[in-house]
Amino acid sequence: MKYYVGIDLGGTNIVAGVVNENYEIISKASTKTNCPRPEKEIACDMAKMAVEAVKKAGLDMEKDVEWVGIGTPGIANSSTGVIEYSNNLGFKNTPMVEYIQEYINKPVFIENDANAAAYGEYVAGAAKGAENAVCITLGTGVGGGIIIGGKIYAGSNFGGAEIGHTVIEVDGAQCSCGRKGCFEAYSSATGLIRMTKEAIALHPDCIMDNMSKDKGKVTARTSFDSMRAGDPFAKEVVDKYIKYLACGITNVINIFQPDILCIGGGVCNEGDPLLLPVKALVKGEVYTRNSQKNTEIVIAKLGNDAGIIGAAFLGRANS
Amino acid sequence: MKYYVGIDLGGTNIVAGVVNENYEIISKASTKTNCPRPEKEIACDMAKMAVEAVKKAGLDMEKDVEWVGIGTPGIANSSTGVIEYSNNLGFKNTPMVEYIQEYINKPVFIENDANAAAYGEYVAGAAKGAENAVCITLGTGVGGGIIIGGKIYAGSNFGGAEIGHTVIEVDGAQCSCGRKGCFEAYSSATGLIRMTKEAIALHPDCIMDNMSKDKGKVTARTSFDSMRAGDPFAKEVVDKYIKYLACGITNVINIFQPDILCIGGGVCNEGDPLLLPVKALVKGEVYTRNSQKNTEIVIAKLGNDAGIIGAAFLGRANS
Repeated sequence: MKYYVGIDLGGTNIVAGVVNENYEIISKASTKTNCPRPEKEIACDMAKMAVEAVKKAGLDMEKDVEWVGIGTPGIANSSTGVIEYSNNLGFKNTPMVEYIQEYINKPVFIENDANAAAYGEYVAGAAKGAENAVCITLGTGVGGGIIIGGKIYAGSNFGGAEIGHTVIEVDGAQCSCGRKGCFEAYSSATGLIRMTKEAIALHPDCIMDNMSKDKGKVTARTSFDSMRAGDPFAKEVVDKYIKYLACGITNVINIFQPDILCIGGGVCNEGDPLLLPVKALVKGEVYTRNSQKNTEIVIAKLGNDAGIIGAAFLGRANS
Repeated sequence: MKYYVGIDLGGTNIVAGVVNENYEIISKASTKTNCPRPEKEIACDMAKMAVEAVKKAGLDMEKDVEWVGIGTPGIANSSTGVIEYSNNLGFKNTPMVEYIQEYINKPVFIENDANAAAYGEYVAGAAKGAENAVCITLGTGVGGGIIIGGKIYAGSNFGGAEIGHTVIEVDGAQCSCGRKGCFEAYSSATGLIRMTKEAIALHPDCIMDNMSKDKGKVTARTSFDSMRAGDPFAKEVVDKYIKYLACGITNVINIFQPDILCIGGGVCNEGDPLLLPVKALVKGEVYTRNSQKNTEIVIAKLGNDAGIIGAAFLGRANS
């Protein structure tokens, strides 16, 4: 059996996992990222977590582990091993591979976290078996990862796959990236919460309003839950969310026509009430609606483990 | 010297060209497509034009030509050699490679015409030297072609790269594809003419109105020419055109981060008055605006020859 270490470097936590050749995580170790602090300290903790996870698995780093892979927010140059820029972590031109290799004498690979998670779904999750796949994560933002011919496509400057930052409504809602009307501004959990709040402001005392007051805040579930409780205004919010999501997904399919388009993130826990109408809208709009072969839209399978599993197999992703 | 035949199969004309290994077209032969008529007749004329072009070049098909490549409208399955669907030509599951090989005993390759033209710009034109490139053609529609790692990316069902059919304004202008608000509905020559007509309707007797009456019709040049003649309403049309074009281009760059983004088509003859403001808007909006390396936006170089040159080198495009 061969073993690989994947590290998911997040703004909040550093999680390292040992993954076996069957794509199973057999041990994990984690610590707080504690941003902001010096990049070398973070690298040291990442190496420590890797070593700890290997120990927990009862393995020997030197003998049993093939390589270490890292998924990180920001722009990760997979050729040079440098994190060129990460807003979340405050990194600029951080030679992360070099830092980790001061502690671990193994090949070390690095990749943007959304790309690594997409690769995880590709090797072991919902996009398994695809030749070409696109993964979209509906979270705080809308993340994207592109797999072409079984390899991660990150663009010529490693800053690509920012599918969330494609405008679908000129002069629309303000996006965190500076543009207006981005896919992310509508289809992220944050976008759904914003649209829910806008509807509550227009319809005080509606079920959404009362439900969110009971919970103490508006969440990405408020509109879906209130819709199920019979709130017509909540249904409007959900319908709008679904319409914009289907629009963004159709855009991606018209460009890539992948075998599989995989959507993940918390909002996907809504399941069929979200997925079925999205699929129906896409089916009616996609450019190849008369073709025999069309993209399969699926829900991501691996959750937060996608990042670790994808990172663990980075040694294959660009070879 | 090695020679290759490229055939550009269009709705109006069939053009075959002999291209040498320096990417120069050394002879051409053409005839009308005369649609609609039986697909085998069209294939026969395509083969005839190939033979004629080779003869004109003073070459021998058997001895001197490496292969024949075809660029066609619609969905071309480059693996099977079948044109699966072409609305323009009325083709459905047409085994074009087989048909051509009844006349010409050479390897024959087939590809969507926009993809072939993009490949032409990549091997010999404005995208030469790129690892990753995206080409956008602003014509009757907005065509797209994607080159990744030096290969054409056509998607898993050969229907991809329909960049023109990505919505940039939800519920916007009606597109020919059935969607509303597509990039094509704003950034094609057709879209520019529509916006010009809308402005003329609002401002009868403006310079655009008079200029188009003099010419007998509104063209894609009317707004640019009238702007230069001092029409403030024409400037509004041009500004809007540039805004939507920059939006679509920024979307493409945020996804692909290619080395080169190449724009072609008649509208690009406007040159700097179009290109410079587009570049400025993209520069201010693109996700990687703080990165050292950003996509270079260039004007296509090969014009209508791109399709022939790209088709001629298809033997390399998918190998």
